[in-house]
Amino acid sequence: MTYTVQIKVMPLKELLDPQGKAIVGGLQNLGLDGIEDVRVGKNISLQINAGSPDQAKQIAEEASKKLLANPVMEYFEVSVN
Amino acid sequence: MTYTVQIKVMPLKELLDPQGKAIVGGLQNLGLDGIEDVRVGKNISLQINAGSPDQAKQIAEEASKKLLANPVMEYFEVSVN
Repeated sequence: MTYTVQIKVMPLKELLDPQGKAIVGGLQNLGLDGIEDVRVGKNISLQINAGSPDQAKQIAEEASKKLLANPVMEYFEVSVN
Repeated sequence: MTYTVQIKVMPLKELLDPQGKAIVGGLQNLGLDGIEDVRVGKNISLQINAGSPDQAKQIAEEASKKLLANPVMEYFEVSVN
């Protein structure tokens, strides 16, 4: 069966996120207040052929470790729909 | 109150996603089979000061329309945690 898997790759909380800081500034310039902290990461959506949701999740985690996320700067979360 | 809002910005389904295609190829080269379609977008996490979750969602949607998503190439989804 084909499962849709979402992988969220975000910068580690300990690190500065300059892109997020730029967005906070941009939104303030546009008159949107109340937005405090912004962090920008990737969202990767995959169609995975697997025998079970657990197996699909396992494949996605392996893909994240091997290619999609850089553990020095990023963490990832996998969710199977 | 401060709400954590996630905005998912993804390329429109009608458009090719070359970054996603490159990931499919890269994962096959790494020996990970069964991955068919990959699409890469952004995940933006915001801390928003608002009176209610609905208001926080509204602010996030306005931010997406004004700055974060390009409606010609992308769609967005907002979720409030």
